[in-house]
Amino acid sequence: MLSNHFQNGVETVRHAWSRIPNSEESQFVDDAVGLVRKSDGSSVESLDYEVIENFAYREEQARRGKLYVSYLLVVKWLFALLIGIGTGLAAVFINLSVENFAGWKFSLTFSIIQKSYIAGFLLYALINLVLVFSSVYIVTQFAPAAAGSGIPEIKGYLNGVDIHGILLLRTLIGKIFGSIGSVGGGLALGKEGPLVHTGACIASLLGQGGSTKYHINSRWFQVFRSDRDRRDLVTCGCAAGVAAAFRAPVGGVLFALEEVTSWWRSQLMWRVFFTSAIVAVVVRTAMGWCKNGNCGHFGSGGFIIWDISDGQEDYSFAELLPMAIIGVIGGLLGALFNQLTLYISSWRRNHLHKKGSRIIEACLVSLLTSIISFCLPLLRECSPCPESDPTSGIECPRPPGMYGNYVNFFCSSDKEYNDLATIFFNTQDDAIRNLFSAKTIHEYSSQSLLTFLVMFYTLAVLTFGTAVPAGQFVPGIMIGSTYGRLVGMFVVKYYKKLNIEEGTYALLGAASFLGGSMRMTVSLCVIMVEITNNLKLLPLIMLVLLISKAVGDAFNEGLYEEQARLRGIPLLESRPKYEMRNMTAREACGSGRVISLPRVVKVSDVVSILRSNKHNGFPVIDHTRSGESLVIGLVLRSHLLVILQSKVDFQHSPLPSDPRGGDRSIRHDSHEFAKPVSSKGICIDDIHLSPDDLEMYIDLAPFLNPSPYIVPEDMSLTKVYNLFRQLGLRHLFVVPRPSRVLGLITRKDLMIEDTENVNTLELQSTSAFELEDLGFECVQE
Amino acid sequence: MLSNHFQNGVETVRHAWSRIPNSEESQFVDDAVGLVRKSDGSSVESLDYEVIENFAYREEQARRGKLYVSYLLVVKWLFALLIGIGTGLAAVFINLSVENFAGWKFSLTFSIIQKSYIAGFLLYALINLVLVFSSVYIVTQFAPAAAGSGIPEIKGYLNGVDIHGILLLRTLIGKIFGSIGSVGGGLALGKEGPLVHTGACIASLLGQGGSTKYHINSRWFQVFRSDRDRRDLVTCGCAAGVAAAFRAPVGGVLFALEEVTSWWRSQLMWRVFFTSAIVAVVVRTAMGWCKNGNCGHFGSGGFIIWDISDGQEDYSFAELLPMAIIGVIGGLLGALFNQLTLYISSWRRNHLHKKGSRIIEACLVSLLTSIISFCLPLLRECSPCPESDPTSGIECPRPPGMYGNYVNFFCSSDKEYNDLATIFFNTQDDAIRNLFSAKTIHEYSSQSLLTFLVMFYTLAVLTFGTAVPAGQFVPGIMIGSTYGRLVGMFVVKYYKKLNIEEGTYALLGAASFLGGSMRMTVSLCVIMVEITNNLKLLPLIMLVLLISKAVGDAFNEGLYEEQARLRGIPLLESRPKYEMRNMTAREACGSGRVISLPRVVKVSDVVSILRSNKHNGFPVIDHTRSGESLVIGLVLRSHLLVILQSKVDFQHSPLPSDPRGGDRSIRHDSHEFAKPVSSKGICIDDIHLSPDDLEMYIDLAPFLNPSPYIVPEDMSLTKVYNLFRQLGLRHLFVVPRPSRVLGLITRKDLMIEDTENVNTLELQSTSAFELEDLGFECVQE
Repeated sequence: MLSNHFQNGVETVRHAWSRIPNSEESQFVDDAVGLVRKSDGSSVESLDYEVIENFAYREEQARRGKLYVSYLLVVKWLFALLIGIGTGLAAVFINLSVENFAGWKFSLTFSIIQKSYIAGFLLYALINLVLVFSSVYIVTQFAPAAAGSGIPEIKGYLNGVDIHGILLLRTLIGKIFGSIGSVGGGLALGKEGPLVHTGACIASLLGQGGSTKYHINSRWFQVFRSDRDRRDLVTCGCAAGVAAAFRAPVGGVLFALEEVTSWWRSQLMWRVFFTSAIVAVVVRTAMGWCKNGNCGHFGSGGFIIWDISDGQEDYSFAELLPMAIIGVIGGLLGALFNQLTLYISSWRRNHLHKKGSRIIEACLVSLLTSIISFCLPLLRECSPCPESDPTSGIECPRPPGMYGNYVNFFCSSDKEYNDLATIFFNTQDDAIRNLFSAKTIHEYSSQSLLTFLVMFYTLAVLTFGTAVPAGQFVPGIMIGSTYGRLVGMFVVKYYKKLNIEEGTYALLGAASFLGGSMRMTVSLCVIMVEITNNLKLLPLIMLVLLISKAVGDAFNEGLYEEQARLRGIPLLESRPKYEMRNMTAREACGSGRVISLPRVVKVSDVVSILRSNKHNGFPVIDHTRSGESLVIGLVLRSHLLVILQSKVDFQHSPLPSDPRGGDRSIRHDSHEFAKPVSSKGICIDDIHLSPDDLEMYIDLAPFLNPSPYIVPEDMSLTKVYNLFRQLGLRHLFVVPRPSRVLGLITRKDLMIEDTENVNTLELQSTSAFELEDLGFECVQE
Repeated sequence: MLSNHFQNGVETVRHAWSRIPNSEESQFVDDAVGLVRKSDGSSVESLDYEVIENFAYREEQARRGKLYVSYLLVVKWLFALLIGIGTGLAAVFINLSVENFAGWKFSLTFSIIQKSYIAGFLLYALINLVLVFSSVYIVTQFAPAAAGSGIPEIKGYLNGVDIHGILLLRTLIGKIFGSIGSVGGGLALGKEGPLVHTGACIASLLGQGGSTKYHINSRWFQVFRSDRDRRDLVTCGCAAGVAAAFRAPVGGVLFALEEVTSWWRSQLMWRVFFTSAIVAVVVRTAMGWCKNGNCGHFGSGGFIIWDISDGQEDYSFAELLPMAIIGVIGGLLGALFNQLTLYISSWRRNHLHKKGSRIIEACLVSLLTSIISFCLPLLRECSPCPESDPTSGIECPRPPGMYGNYVNFFCSSDKEYNDLATIFFNTQDDAIRNLFSAKTIHEYSSQSLLTFLVMFYTLAVLTFGTAVPAGQFVPGIMIGSTYGRLVGMFVVKYYKKLNIEEGTYALLGAASFLGGSMRMTVSLCVIMVEITNNLKLLPLIMLVLLISKAVGDAFNEGLYEEQARLRGIPLLESRPKYEMRNMTAREACGSGRVISLPRVVKVSDVVSILRSNKHNGFPVIDHTRSGESLVIGLVLRSHLLVILQSKVDFQHSPLPSDPRGGDRSIRHDSHEFAKPVSSKGICIDDIHLSPDDLEMYIDLAPFLNPSPYIVPEDMSLTKVYNLFRQLGLRHLFVVPRPSRVLGLITRKDLMIEDTENVNTLELQSTSAFELEDLGFECVQE
C-alpha cells in the first residue's frame, strides 16, 4: 500500500513537472556525475562580462537619465532582499523536511527495536531506501544538473563559464527535493553544498523574472539581461546559500568573495552582505516560530550551530604540537579524499554510468549505509554511564525521543550507553554536536572512534558522485571531528590537565579536514568560528587551516578545483602560470586563422562561415576611402544568429547604410541580443532562410562591439592573462603594434568631478582648489 | 627640574635622530594637517603596478628558474611573519606605554585630590600638557607625515598614489612615540588609526630591508623592489595594524580588503590572514606575560576587547525600531562630523598653520581637554550607589587604584559615585568599557550622558587635525556609545522588559556612528563583533550599519575619502562615473600633445624634454625600413633619469645598437631602476652633464616597457576606467584603431597545463582527456 501511495505521488509530481516550461532544456541528455551534456556535445560556454557597446546599447544608454540609475539601484537592492528571503525560506524548508523525515525515522525505529531489532533494521533500511530512491529518481529523471554539490559549477559560473542547465528552475526544484531525500535518507553527505547551488538558482531565476515563460515584469528583464548583472546576482545567491547553510553571514560573504576574487567590487560586497543579513534574519525568525513546537521534529537541530561556548577558553603553548599534528592529519586525509573521489568519479563515468545504472547504484549505497550504521553499533559492547554531573545538564542514557549524547542502543542494562551508536546511529547534525560537546570527556572509546572514522570515510568516498544532491561539508566535519577527538583524547591522557576539552580538538579536526580537502582559507575559518559561536578559537583554527592547506597543496588541488577539472569546467586561476612570462600574446593564440567579416556581408557568406566553424566571435574589417583596412569591431555568433533569424536587417544593397540616420536603430532593442541564462540560445541549424534571403546583405556596423579590448602582439602572456581574468573577458584581439599614440591616459584624466552633486558644492570648490594646488600638478602624466 | 630633564631628553632624541639617514627626505618642508609637501611643490605621485617588461626584466626572468619562484614564496611568507611580529610588538609597546602613562597619571591625580582638588587638577593638566607637547614636538619637528590617522594616506597608497614621506622610518618612529604622547595625554583621539599606519610603515621598511642606508640583505632588495610587491607588503601591514589595534584578525583582513578591492588576489588574502593571525598570537602572548604583573599599570586594559558576552542575547522585533533610530542618529551625527572636520581642517590649513602655530594649538587643545574632563564632573552632583548585587561582581564605588564603573569623584559620601566622572575622568578604553557594561542599568543619568555627548563631540571635532597622530575609531565609539546608551535608557524605560541591556544599545550606537562617519561596511561590522566578542549581535550591527551608512551617504562622502580629497590624494573610486559612459578614451586624454621620443635620442634632447614638461611617461616611436612609424614602447621619466645619471649607456653613434647582442644587457640590473618608496628619486636638476655628454646618443630600446596596455581611441571611458583601475595602471596608450587582427585570445588559449607537476601526472592524463572531450570543443572561440 505504501508503495502504491508512493507510485501515485511520483505520478503527481511527474504530471506537475510536465507543466514546468522546459523548452530551453529539452536537448539535455543525462550524463555522468552531475554533468549535463547537450545532445550536440557541447556543455559549457564562456560568459562575457564585457559591455557590448553596440548602437542599440548606446542608444539605450542615451535614453536613460539619472533617474534610471536610481531605479536600477533600487531594483538591485530589492533583488538582494528577495534573494535573501527566497534562499532563507528554501533553507528553512529543506531543514524542516530533513529534520522531520529523519526524526520520524529514528523515533519509529527506536520504538520498534524495543521489540525486535530485525524489524527495526528492516524498517530503518526501507525508509532510507525510499528517501534515497525519491532523490535519485528526481535527479536522474527530471533535473540531471542537480546532482552533486553544485559548488564546482557555481564556481565555474562566477569564473566565467556557463554550464548549461545549472541555473534552471527544474534544477532548483530537483536540488531542493533531491537533497531532502538524500540527506533525510541518511547518506554520508550534507545539504550545505546544495544550498549554495539553491541560492544561486534562486538568484538567477529572480534575475530572469521567473522562468522563461512566466516572467513577472518585462522591464526587469531588460535590467538584468547581461552576463555582468547576472553574475552579481548569482554572487549574492551564492553568499546567501552559505549564510543559510551555516547560519554564517560573514562566512557567506567571504565564501563568495574567495571564490570570485577576479572582479569583486566594494558596492557589491555591501549588497552581498545585506543579502546574507536578510538570510540570517529569515532563518532566525523561522526558528523562533518553530520553537513553539509548530514544526514537528524540527527542534533545536537542523541549522548547524554547534555551540561550544562551554568549551575550553584558553590554550597553552604545549597544546600547539597536537594541534599542528591535527593539521597534518587533516591535510593528508583531505588530499587522499580528493584523490580517491577523483578516481572514483572518473571510474564511474567511464565504466558504470554508461550502463545507465545510476538509480540502482544509489539504492545500493543507501542499503550499505543503512547496514553499516545499524549493524556496527550492534557489535559494539555498551559502556556503563559515567557518574552523572547534574550541573552539566547531560543525562545518561538520554531519554527516549530526545537528541543528545549517550544513546542507549542494544544495551543490556538501563544505565549503559553505546558510544558507537551515539555517533553512527544518529542524524549527522546530532552526531557532530555530540562529537563537539564539552564536559563529556571519556564518552567515546578510541576503538569506536577509529571504527567510525574508517567506515565513514569509506562511505563518504563511495557516496561521492552518486546521482543525488550531495554536499561535502558535513561529511568532512564528521570525519575531521572524529580524528580530532581521538587526538584530543590522547592529549587529555598525556597532558593531564583539567581545562582541555576533547570537543575543542574535534572542532579543530573538522577545520583541518575541510582545509585539507577544500583548501578554502579565510572563509572556512570564519565559517568554523560562526558555526561554533566561539571567537576565541580563531587563532587555533587559523593555525590548523594553514598547516592542513599547505600539506594538502603539496599533493593535489582542492576538491572543487579537481571536480571542476573532471567535469570539463575550464577555471582560470587567479594567478597566471609561470611559463606565461616567457610567452607572448601572439604565441598564445596559436596558428589558427582568424575569420574576419567585412562590414557589409552577404547572408549566404554569414551562413557558410557560421556553419563551417565553431568560433563565437568574429572581427569585422572595414576599409577607409584610401583603401586602408581598419578593424571596426567584434561581432558575436549569437548576435549574428539573432539578426539572421529576425531578417529585418537584411538589405539589398551591398553598400553600408548610414548607421546614425534612418530607422535602423529602432529595429532592435539591446535586450533582444541577450542570451537566456544556462541555455545555448538558437543554433545556426534552427534558422531557415529562403534562397532570396541568402542573396541579401547585412550591414554589421550597428551590431558589433566597436571597442573590444586589444593587446599588442608581443605583450607577455602574463599581462594578457591578468587583463583577461581581471576584466572577465571572453574575446581579446591581438593586434600589431600601433603606428602612433594619440594620447596617454593617466590617473588625472580619470578624476572627473561629479558636478551634479549639489549638496557637496561648497566642498567641491574647496577640493577643486586643493586638487589643483597640491595633487595634480605633481601627479603628472 | 622636571622640565630640565625633559629638555635633556629632547636633546638626546634629537641627537639620536640626526643619525637616522634622511637623505631621501631632506627636501620636505612642514605643511598643514599631516600633509607633506616637497619644496618643489609636488607631494603625491602615481604608483605603477604594471610590470615593466624591459630587457633587464626579461633577462632577470630568464635567469631565474623554478627554484627562484620557491625562494620568492618563502621570502614572501617570511616577510608576512616578520610584519606580523613587528606590528604586534609595536602595538604591545604603544599600549603598554599608553596604559602606564595614563594609569600613573590617574593614580597620582586621585591620590592628590584626596587633599586638594586644585593641586590635583594642576598636576593632571600638566601631565597631559607634557605628554601632548612631546607628541606634537616629535611630529612637527621630526616626522610631519606622522600627523593625523594615516589611514587616508595608506588608502591612497593602496589605491595607487604614493604620498612622499608616509612610509619612512622617521614617520614610523614619530607615529609610535607621537601616539603614545597624544593618547596618553588624554586627547579625544585614539591609537587605532596610527597603528594601521605603523603596520604599513613596518611592512614597507621590511620590504626595503630597513631604511635606505642600513639594509639587511641586498638580495632582498631585488625581490621587493617593484611597486607591485610593495603594495602586497603594505596590504599585509595594513591588515596587521587593524588586527593589532582591535585584536580583530578577521576584521583586519576585511579592512585591508575593503579598502583595496581593485586588485585583490586569493593568495594574497591567505598571506594577509596569516599576518593577522601572527599579530593575534603575539599580542596574546604579550598579554599573558603581562597578566603576571610585569607590565605596571597595563592590566586587563589597553587592547580593546569590550567583552559584552554577559549582555543581552536575544532581541524582540519591537526593539528594531529604536535600533533603526540609532542608525539614523549615527548617520546624521557621522555625516555632520565629517563635514565639520572638513571645514575645520580646511580653515586650519588656510589660516592657522600659515603662522606656524601648530605646537601652541595642540597645547591649547590639551589644556581645554584637561579643563573640561576635570571640571565638568566637579559640577555634577553625585548619585548614591545602587543596591549592590554580589553576583555581578561590580563594586560601588570602585576601590581606589582599580578600573571600573562607579567612580567616586568629588562626592560627599563614601557610598556615592559621580556618573560623569565615570566616563569623562577616565581613560577612553575604561570609559567605553563602562558604557558597554551590562548589569549597570540606571548607572548614568541622561543629563550626564547628554553633557558628555555634546562636550566630547566638540572636543573630538576640535582635536581632529592637530599635528599629532590621531585615530578616529575610539572617539567615534565614545560618541556613538553615549547616544546609544541614551536610546537604550529610553527603551528600558518604555518597553519595561527585563532582558534589555543598555550596554547593547551603546554598542549599536558605536557601530552606527562609525558607520555614519567612516562608511565602512563589512569590515567595520566584523571588527565590532570581534571587539565585543559576541557573534549573536551580528544581524543587529548589520542593520544599524546599513541604515547609518545610507543616511550618511545622502550627505557626504566617508571621513577618509573627504580627508584624502582635502589632502590632494586622488583616489580612484571603484565605480566609474556615470558620465563616462558617453565619453571616449580620445576625449579623456584631452588636447595635450603627447611628447614622443625616437628610439635613438640625443642626450641634449632628452634633457630639454625632461626639463620642459612634467610628464612621467613618454611613448617611443621607431621607424621600420619601409619608413612606417611604429610605437615600440613607453619609457618612464625615472628610468631616463637613471640612464642620464649613470651615463654608461651613452653612445656616439645615432644608429640603434643591437639590443640582443653585446654587453648592453649587463650594464643595468632591473633593480637599479626601482624607485625607493615614499621618495621622489632623482630629479633632472640633480644631474650634471658635460657638453660632450650632451652630444651623445642613447638607444632607448633596452629600457622601455615594450608592451604597455593600449586602448582604441573610441573605447568608452567606462571600459577604460575599469581597465585602468582593475590593473592598477599608471599610463595607458590611446591608439588608433588597428588595421588587422592577428589573433583572438579566448579562455582556451589561457588554459595552459602545468606539465611539471609530477605528482599529479596521473590526474593530468585524465583531465586532459576530459578537457578535450567535454570542455573545449564547446567553449569555442
